[in-house]
Amino acid sequence: MRNLLMTVCYDGTNYYGFQTQPGGNTVQDYIEATICQLTGEVIKIHGSGRTDAGVHAREQPFHFITDSQIPIERWRMALNGRLPKDIRITSAREVPLAFHSRRSAKRKTYRYSINGNRVPDVFQRNYQLHHPGKLDVAAMRDSLPFLIGTHDYTSFASRHSTKASHVRTIYEAKLEVDSSIEYPGTHEQGIIHLYITGNGFLQHMVRIIVGTLLEIGEGKRQPGAMKAILEEQNRKAAGPTAESKGLMLWKVEYDEHSIRMSEEGDN
Amino acid sequence: MRNLLMTVCYDGTNYYGFQTQPGGNTVQDYIEATICQLTGEVIKIHGSGRTDAGVHAREQPFHFITDSQIPIERWRMALNGRLPKDIRITSAREVPLAFHSRRSAKRKTYRYSINGNRVPDVFQRNYQLHHPGKLDVAAMRDSLPFLIGTHDYTSFASRHSTKASHVRTIYEAKLEVDSSIEYPGTHEQGIIHLYITGNGFLQHMVRIIVGTLLEIGEGKRQPGAMKAILEEQNRKAAGPTAESKGLMLWKVEYDEHSIRMSEEGDN
Repeated sequence: MRNLLMTVCYDGTNYYGFQTQPGGNTVQDYIEATICQLTGEVIKIHGSGRTDAGVHAREQPFHFITDSQIPIERWRMALNGRLPKDIRITSAREVPLAFHSRRSAKRKTYRYSINGNRVPDVFQRNYQLHHPGKLDVAAMRDSLPFLIGTHDYTSFASRHSTKASHVRTIYEAKLEVDSSIEYPGTHEQGIIHLYITGNGFLQHMVRIIVGTLLEIGEGKRQPGAMKAILEEQNRKAAGPTAESKGLMLWKVEYDEHSIRMSEEGDN
Repeated sequence: MRNLLMTVCYDGTNYYGFQTQPGGNTVQDYIEATICQLTGEVIKIHGSGRTDAGVHAREQPFHFITDSQIPIERWRMALNGRLPKDIRITSAREVPLAFHSRRSAKRKTYRYSINGNRVPDVFQRNYQLHHPGKLDVAAMRDSLPFLIGTHDYTSFASRHSTKASHVRTIYEAKLEVDSSIEYPGTHEQGIIHLYITGNGFLQHMVRIIVGTLLEIGEGKRQPGAMKAILEEQNRKAAGPTAESKGLMLWKVEYDEHSIRMSEEGDN
């Protein structure tokens, strides 16, 4: 019995999110079916978290327990040969049996991308929100420090959240403007990326933060409003939920000791 | 009567190329249908050149003659509101009646992109050839100078070419390696872009050059082979035709005097 940790990169455009749903067509469904084809095992994989329909992942970790003896270095190519082209396994390693991709996670980073140029980028059309109106990026930046720390983020959580606690910790939030991409129109407002890192995120949390940031960028709210919204602990206080397609699970970090196999073996 | 020059950016994945074909589903068909919806005119647009099925364009110029009085600054958004999301008009201007997007073109640049990393980039999967095997980029670069100049490029033209002359001039050809993109696996061989500029290109010419360059990069041929292949004037001498999805029409340049309206107006 081995515990395998893999990372998967996917274009979420055509899927109903990562985690299995009654309606099927999720990234998890495809990976589990492919593992079954490869090993004959009907297993359940455990992701580091869910992503909504249309949300992408640059690096989504998942783990599963298997009795298969396939050497670890063979898994990636064996699975990729059978998976759809918009889902790629990017790494695979054996980890201690105690490791859990969600419970062991220390830091998660999401990226949200906004194309502020006049003309949308055809080649990034499924990965960016197109917002050609003028945005005050400095004001958006000024509002970010209010989000940092340990807070109750009820104002930035879906009304359908079923979590017992809405307290989370955000470690870092930054806006980067990329004017380097050489497509027509990019010598304008550029591509604005929000990178946000925390110990966990509530349903729709990053997208509601982005919807609020856009209102600040448009001058509809002041940067200081972010503090007041957070303190209200009321979803109605925040801005709308930004489109899912601009969101990408960027990376998930673990303590090295939780993933390193001991010298004597772990089993 | 006005002559309008526009540029269009398209993701060619789902189209049978730019130029109208008996089977339909070309970029030109969609643009012409959209102009008809907008103005009621059944017109023919003239592209700067063709692109094959699956080839993309960052900036494909086309022109057409119209009697419409729609102000020039309104055209872009009016057409984009009706076009499929993978076709975007990026600019529009009025030009002299004598201007022709193909005949007036001075320099055309194509880009071909090769992903040399272990794992394909999910988000660029339709815009890059995936070639994870080790490539000798220095050898590929050494072969490029032999392509520069005015030559008969029969060795690099489709056998189905119907052109009376295969003499063209290549002004510039360069390979750039981009290791900056932060997706999993990109800290390996990186993304290799070939930029090639000439006064015109024969059918499949860039793709056959790339197929030959890959053989040089793999060590199957020496850099100097490029000279011998060119001199043979025989398609069989060159390498295979590389996949269309890695190819993008990058830009087309005109002399400023051919596109500038005179102060008195041109009609």
